[in-house]
Amino acid sequence: MLSKNQVKLIHGLKKKKIRKSEQLFIAEGIKVVEELLGSKLKVHKLFFTNAYLNPFNVTDYQIITEKELQLISDFSSPNQILGIFEIPPFKEPFHEGLTVLLDEVNDPGNLGTIIRLCDWFGVDQLVCSKNTADCYNQKVVQASMGSLARLNVTYTDAVSYLKNEKRPVYGTFLNGANVYRTQLEQDAVIILGNEANGISKPVEAYVTQKLTIPQFGENQITESLNVAMATAIFLSEFRR
Amino acid sequence: MLSKNQVKLIHGLKKKKIRKSEQLFIAEGIKVVEELLGSKLKVHKLFFTNAYLNPFNVTDYQIITEKELQLISDFSSPNQILGIFEIPPFKEPFHEGLTVLLDEVNDPGNLGTIIRLCDWFGVDQLVCSKNTADCYNQKVVQASMGSLARLNVTYTDAVSYLKNEKRPVYGTFLNGANVYRTQLEQDAVIILGNEANGISKPVEAYVTQKLTIPQFGENQITESLNVAMATAIFLSEFRR
Repeated sequence: MLSKNQVKLIHGLKKKKIRKSEQLFIAEGIKVVEELLGSKLKVHKLFFTNAYLNPFNVTDYQIITEKELQLISDFSSPNQILGIFEIPPFKEPFHEGLTVLLDEVNDPGNLGTIIRLCDWFGVDQLVCSKNTADCYNQKVVQASMGSLARLNVTYTDAVSYLKNEKRPVYGTFLNGANVYRTQLEQDAVIILGNEANGISKPVEAYVTQKLTIPQFGENQITESLNVAMATAIFLSEFRR
Repeated sequence: MLSKNQVKLIHGLKKKKIRKSEQLFIAEGIKVVEELLGSKLKVHKLFFTNAYLNPFNVTDYQIITEKELQLISDFSSPNQILGIFEIPPFKEPFHEGLTVLLDEVNDPGNLGTIIRLCDWFGVDQLVCSKNTADCYNQKVVQASMGSLARLNVTYTDAVSYLKNEKRPVYGTFLNGANVYRTQLEQDAVIILGNEANGISKPVEAYVTQKLTIPQFGENQITESLNVAMATAIFLSEFRR
């Protein structure tokens, strides 16, 4: 049976403050939990129903009822399992390979999608500005579908990171060079900005090459592409 | 003041059945409503608060209170205006230019994003299988951010559409040819499939070239990219 303290902890972990103090986060559902179990991340505790077979033979588990799972789940139809995992120790961001730098990306769904894309395209490191959404937010964990466990993700001050950067620093703007006609270096930083305001002025100062995804067709579209879409297209261009 | 019948109609238009019988749909918020007002779509009626300036001088409007707007809005913070628009008359799908064909894409958010991408990349026509999400669903309208008004979108039986197709028919699969190393024709059909099951067997029979977005890096990722991400990357490759 779930204790009151367990329920309190799990609900508490929806808040960044509690995740930070406990150094724990939550993942749900068989697919995502098993992707994390198969990674280098450390499990703190699993809660699952009788239906779950525990193929990874995790020893820190507790069997709960469907009703109890419903109580702690964010899903409308919970899927057998909820896991608490340890947030890995902080790693200093490094300056080699291909780095994606997010300058205040706020939407957890966008961040989850970007983590997934970085994993797919073999990005070496995702560096998030301090005011970017928290990658251990449950919505991000679910949207990233296990990619979170494989990718190097760190949070740091974006300007400090960019000081003394020797690689080319690409930034995505509405008025940059056509990304399809630009020679792109593989060891580089690609910066993507906030959903509403784009890349901030202090960060823009370190951009060595502005890039744009051109529009095609007759329509003049006033809005830019969503940041996750732009990430998909830029990473595809870098890696193709 | 809003009448009971008006409230009933607006709430009814959340259902596909009512949208179909009334041939009307809803858009909300200044940005999306004004994109539609600036298009060839016909407005049925606008409801807005005193704060809205009506720069398009629409005559079919009614001024309502903030409270009334809250009552009919899907937003947690409604943004001055809600519009009812006419669904344009059905147009036969055609067989030239670049067509994107969706084979049962279910998620309204994905469909909205795909509509936006098709508009950005100057796709000539979006053909949706009958069981694809409804593009006049309010979530699709909001996610497509006005692109819905600019793009040719039709619903039809996918197999009937593909019979006698003379253009190349590209389909996205896990085991297709590397999209980056394939000569892509500009007059073509690109098929994207259902979120869980991909392209259905009857539709697959008409694919003349299977395509894949390869993974990069060391990680072996078990899941495919989300259909909206895949669309972004494929369209970028077709148009670059």
